[in-house]
Amino acid sequence: MSSDHQPLDEMPSPMPVALSKYSKRVLLKTILDRPDGGLGLLDQRVVVGGWVKSSREVRKDPPPPTTQPPAAVGGDHTKEHTGGKDVKCVEVFQSRIPFLRTIIKVFGGNTGHTKEKLESIFPKQPPPSISFLQISDGSSVISLQIMVDSSIAPSTLLMPTGTCILAEGVLQKPSLQGKHTIELKAEKLLHIGIVDQDNYPLSKKSLPLARLRDCAHFRPRTTTVASVMRVRNALNHASHTFFQNQGFVHVEVPILTATETEGLSKKFKIFTVSGKEVKREEPVSMDDTADISLETVKLSIIEKSKKIEELKRSDSNKEALDAAVHDLHKTNALAAELEARSKSKSKSKSESHKKTESFKTYDEFFTNRAFLTTSGSLHLESCASALGNVYALGPRFHVDKSDSKKYLPERWMIETEIAFAELEDVMNCAEDFLKFVSHSVSENCYENLYFLSKRVDKTLIDRLQSMTSASFEKITYDTAVEVLNKVTDKTFETKIQWGVALTEEHESYLVDEFYKKPVIIHDHPKELKPFNVRLNDDGKTVASFDVIVPKVGALIRGSQKEERLNHLTKRIKELGLRKDQYEWYLDLRKQGTVKHSGFSVTFDVMVLFATGLNDVRDVIPFPRQHGKLHN
Amino acid sequence: MSSDHQPLDEMPSPMPVALSKYSKRVLLKTILDRPDGGLGLLDQRVVVGGWVKSSREVRKDPPPPTTQPPAAVGGDHTKEHTGGKDVKCVEVFQSRIPFLRTIIKVFGGNTGHTKEKLESIFPKQPPPSISFLQISDGSSVISLQIMVDSSIAPSTLLMPTGTCILAEGVLQKPSLQGKHTIELKAEKLLHIGIVDQDNYPLSKKSLPLARLRDCAHFRPRTTTVASVMRVRNALNHASHTFFQNQGFVHVEVPILTATETEGLSKKFKIFTVSGKEVKREEPVSMDDTADISLETVKLSIIEKSKKIEELKRSDSNKEALDAAVHDLHKTNALAAELEARSKSKSKSKSESHKKTESFKTYDEFFTNRAFLTTSGSLHLESCASALGNVYALGPRFHVDKSDSKKYLPERWMIETEIAFAELEDVMNCAEDFLKFVSHSVSENCYENLYFLSKRVDKTLIDRLQSMTSASFEKITYDTAVEVLNKVTDKTFETKIQWGVALTEEHESYLVDEFYKKPVIIHDHPKELKPFNVRLNDDGKTVASFDVIVPKVGALIRGSQKEERLNHLTKRIKELGLRKDQYEWYLDLRKQGTVKHSGFSVTFDVMVLFATGLNDVRDVIPFPRQHGKLHN
Repeated sequence: MSSDHQPLDEMPSPMPVALSKYSKRVLLKTILDRPDGGLGLLDQRVVVGGWVKSSREVRKDPPPPTTQPPAAVGGDHTKEHTGGKDVKCVEVFQSRIPFLRTIIKVFGGNTGHTKEKLESIFPKQPPPSISFLQISDGSSVISLQIMVDSSIAPSTLLMPTGTCILAEGVLQKPSLQGKHTIELKAEKLLHIGIVDQDNYPLSKKSLPLARLRDCAHFRPRTTTVASVMRVRNALNHASHTFFQNQGFVHVEVPILTATETEGLSKKFKIFTVSGKEVKREEPVSMDDTADISLETVKLSIIEKSKKIEELKRSDSNKEALDAAVHDLHKTNALAAELEARSKSKSKSKSESHKKTESFKTYDEFFTNRAFLTTSGSLHLESCASALGNVYALGPRFHVDKSDSKKYLPERWMIETEIAFAELEDVMNCAEDFLKFVSHSVSENCYENLYFLSKRVDKTLIDRLQSMTSASFEKITYDTAVEVLNKVTDKTFETKIQWGVALTEEHESYLVDEFYKKPVIIHDHPKELKPFNVRLNDDGKTVASFDVIVPKVGALIRGSQKEERLNHLTKRIKELGLRKDQYEWYLDLRKQGTVKHSGFSVTFDVMVLFATGLNDVRDVIPFPRQHGKLHN
Repeated sequence: MSSDHQPLDEMPSPMPVALSKYSKRVLLKTILDRPDGGLGLLDQRVVVGGWVKSSREVRKDPPPPTTQPPAAVGGDHTKEHTGGKDVKCVEVFQSRIPFLRTIIKVFGGNTGHTKEKLESIFPKQPPPSISFLQISDGSSVISLQIMVDSSIAPSTLLMPTGTCILAEGVLQKPSLQGKHTIELKAEKLLHIGIVDQDNYPLSKKSLPLARLRDCAHFRPRTTTVASVMRVRNALNHASHTFFQNQGFVHVEVPILTATETEGLSKKFKIFTVSGKEVKREEPVSMDDTADISLETVKLSIIEKSKKIEELKRSDSNKEALDAAVHDLHKTNALAAELEARSKSKSKSKSESHKKTESFKTYDEFFTNRAFLTTSGSLHLESCASALGNVYALGPRFHVDKSDSKKYLPERWMIETEIAFAELEDVMNCAEDFLKFVSHSVSENCYENLYFLSKRVDKTLIDRLQSMTSASFEKITYDTAVEVLNKVTDKTFETKIQWGVALTEEHESYLVDEFYKKPVIIHDHPKELKPFNVRLNDDGKTVASFDVIVPKVGALIRGSQKEERLNHLTKRIKELGLRKDQYEWYLDLRKQGTVKHSGFSVTFDVMVLFATGLNDVRDVIPFPRQHGKLHN
C-alpha cells in the first residue's frame, strides 16, 4: 500500500461521500450499495440525480409528515402516483384547497421553460404537501427516496414516473415507514426534467417486455432492462478480462468484407448513398446467375454437349447420362434468360443514361463487392498464425431468419483462435471461459441477478453458480446419438440417426435430463460443420465441438481448423466453393502452417443465459428486429 | 496477501516454466520478458512454437559449433538466410559435401506431407550442420534463438523466413555470440510448417509498410506490425479499464440503423443478398429528392404561391419576397424533374416486371430503410438518460473519402455519454481518459514502444510520457482564432477568421509551436458543429470541444448536448433536417430531459498517436482501403 494514502481507521468521520468524477453528483450506488445501505452516511450533504420510478404525496397539514407513518395518513391525504392520467390528484387540489400563488424554487440551469409550463397548468398554488420520490440513476438496482417539500417544487411537477431530478440535500433516516434504509431531504432542486404523462410509455407498473421493445429509447429506465444492461456490461468486461489475463491479443475484424466467409451464410450487400446520385448495382450471391456472362454460359453448353456425347459413347450408367442431359437443359434455359435480360438491359440503358452513370460512381468507391461479415473466424486464423492467441468481440451479420428469439440479423460475437492448440486445448479454454464469466458476473452483479431471479427466472442464480462448479461432460457426437437412440420415454420431433444435426430438443434432453450438467459434444460428421474444420483420421468426422448449456442450448461452437493444405483444398472443391475467394486463406497453409483451434460465443445468447430472459430482443441495448429495425 | 500463497524466497528453484494454458507450449514472453532475460530458466525443458524471423547456418565439421563464436566461423560456413531465393546455400551443399541419405526426425502430428515434399527437394542428405533460428510467437518483441542439429531436420527446410516450428528442447546459454541471453537446444521438432520461398512475401529484411498492406494476412508476422497490434490491444484494454473503473456501462450501438444520424454524413445502404432474387430499392440520402412524391411537391407549389401573394400584399421587405420567388422557381424545377423521372420509371417497370417483384422481397426483410451507422452518439444519449454513464467501443461507417491516412470508411470509435454532466465535466473526463491510456500503454507495452521508437518514431515514448504529465491547455475557439491571427512568421493555407473551421495546420501550430502541449479548444461557432450541441447564451457558439494532441491533431471531439426541447427543435428546422427521423430523439427532451455531455475518440487515430505511424491502414488488423477492400 502506498504511504501517501491515509489508513482507513485514521480517516475523519463521517467520511465525505465520493463524487461521481465527471458529473458533480454522487452516484446512487455509492450510497445504496454499501453494506449498511447508506446508514453510515447520515447527515451528509450530497447532490444526487435520477429519474422518478414511483412517488407518493403526503398532505402536510394537519398531520406533520416527518413523524407520521403512512398507516396513519388518511386515504385522501396520500396519493400513490401510478403514471396514468393523474386526474384524481388534480381534482383533489381544485376542490378542497384554497388557491394560493405558485412559489417554485428551482435553482441553476435554464429553467424558464419549466416555470412557464408550470404556471400555465397551475395558475394558483396547490396545498402544502410533501412528495416522496423513488429515484434511480441507473447505477444501482435500489432506488433512493427523496423527500421534497411543496415549497421547493409542487408535487404534481415532480411525481410523474420518468421525471428527471437533480437534488441537493441531506441524508436522513426515512420519514415514512417502508423498505428504505435512508432518504434524502431535498433542500434545492438543481434541475427538473418534466414528463408529459399522456405520451410517456412507462409507469410505476411494470409493462410486458414485448411492449417495452416499442419504446427502446426509454426502456433502460425500467429496473428489469437496466439490470439486464448492467449484467450485459459485466459479461462484456469479464470476457475481455478472461482473454487479457491469458495473454490474448484483441483484434478488430473488418465488418466490410469482400470474402464470402465460410460459404454457408447469406450476406448483406453494401451500397453507398451519395448526395445526389442514386446508386444501384445488381448484388449477387454465390449461386446467383446475374454476374455470369452469356459467353461463359454458351461455352459451358458446348462443353456439356461434348460430355453427353462422351457418356453416350462410353459404358457409363443411365443415371449419369440423365443427369448430364438434365444439366444441359438447365444451362440452355439459363442462356435464354441471360440473353433476354441483356437485351432488356441495353434497352433501358439507352433510355435512362443516368443509371449507367451511377453504376460508375458506385464502382469508384469499392473495386470489389462489399458484404457485411458473418464471421471473423478466417481473419482471426490469419492473426493467430502470427500473434499466437487472439480474440475478437464485435458485431456479425446474418440474413438468416430462423429462430428469431435467439438470433438477430445483427449479433455480437466473441471469437477466439489459438495457435498450436488442438481440439482438447480449445475445449478446455471454452469451459474455463464460461466458468470465469459465470463466476465474475455472480460476484460483481449479485444485486442485479437477485432482482432478475425474483422478477424473471428463479433458477438463475443456481444456474450460474452450478456453471462455475460443475465439470462439463465431454461426449462425442457418436455417443450423443447412441444416448438419444436409447430414449424410450420420449419422442423427438426430429428422429435421431447418425448424420443428423442435433436439434434443441435433443440438446435439452442431454443437458437437462440425462447428464444434468453442461455437455460438450465433439467430433461431428463433417457434413454438419464448415469446410475448414479439421478432418479426423476416420475420414467421416471432424474435430469440432459444441458447448451445450442449460436454458439456451448451444452457446459456444468451436473446432480445430484444417491446417493441411491438401485436405483443405479437397474440402473446398467437394463443397463447390469458389477457390479464388480463398487464395489468401490457403496461403496460410502454404506458408508456415500451424495447428490451431478456436471457438465462437454468441454474446447475445450468453446474456440470455445469465439473465434468464427468453428473447434476445430484450437483452440488447436497442431492439434490432427481423423485418423491422428499431425506431 | 493471501496466506495460501508460498512466499517467493521459499519457492523451489529452478521454478518450472508456466505453460501457455491452452496450447501445451511455453509462450516466449514467459521466457524472454523476464527481468533476467530467461537466464534463471537455464536447463529447463520446454516446448516452444513460433515462426522463423531470420536464421543462419553453421557447418558442424570441422569446427564444433557449440563453442565457436561467429567471428571465427568462416564466411563459407555461416550462411545468413535472407529470405530471397537461397541459391547460394544450395550450391554450397551440392558442390562441397558428400551426399548422404536424408534422416529427418519429425515427431507427432500428420507430417507425411512435409516428408514427401522434403524428399522431392533433397533426394540426398545435406552435410551435417546446425541451424540457428530466431523465432517469434507473437507474444514478445524479442525472438528466441533455437539451435537445431541437421540430424533432427535439414537446415534448408527450417531456415526460410516464415517457417513454423514447434520444438521441444532445453534452455541453455547461447552457443553463438550475439544479442541473445539464452537459446533453446532443440531435441525434437513436433511440427514444421514449411515455406514456399518463391511466393512468400516476407523476408528477413524489413519491407516498407505500404508494401505490407498487400499481404495483410502475413504482415502481423513482422515485428513492427506485431508490435502495433500489441499496442493496439493495450489501448483497447486500457480504454475499457478506464470506463469500467469509473462505473460506466458498456452498450453495443446498433450497426444497422434506420436513422440518418446527425444528418451530416453520407451513409452506406444495406441490401440483402438472397439465393435467387436480386434485391433492389432506391436508397436515398436526406437531400435526395427521389422519395419525395410528386403530389407533395405540387401541394407545396400551391402553398408557396399563396405565400408570395401574401408577401406582395403585406409590407414585407423585398429580400423576403425575392427569397420566396426564388424558392418557388426551385420547387417548380423539382416538380418537372420528378414528373419526367416518374414517367421513365413507369416505362421501365412495365418492361421489366421482375424488378418490381424483387422490391417486394426486399421489403419483407427490412420494413424501414437500413443504413450502417456513422455514430452511436444519439443512441448513447438515450442510454445515458437511464443508465447514467455509458460508453461504446465499436465500428462506425463513413462514405467520406477525405484524409484517407487518418480516416477509413470503417473505423473503430470509442463514444461516451454522461448524464448530469456539463461541458467542463466532460472535458476533464476526456483529459483523464487520454492520460490514463497513455500511462497504461507506457507501463504495459514498454518493449513494443521501445522497438517502435527505434524503428518508426524517436519521439514516441517522450510524447506518451508528456501526455501523462502535462496539463492540457483549455482555450475557447475565440482565443484560438485570436492567437492564429497574430501569427506573422507563417502563412496558413486556409486564412483564419472567426467562423472558419480550424485545419490541421492551425491545430498543429497551436499544439506544437504555440502552447507546446495538448490543447482543448471549446465553444465553437454553431455552424461548425452538429445540430445537437448545446447552444450557448451568446446564441452564436455551442458547448463543443476538440482535444488536439501532437502528431495526429484532433483526437477527441465532444460536447454538451442540447437538452432543451425548444432549442433542439429550432436547430433541426434551421438545418432543414427531417424532423420525423428524430421523433424518438426529441422524446428524450420531452420526457425527463437531463443535461448530458459526451465525446468520441477515433480509436484508429489514437493508435497512430501511440505507435508513431502515419497511415491508419498500417495500424488496423486488416487494411480496409478506399476503393479497394482487403481480401
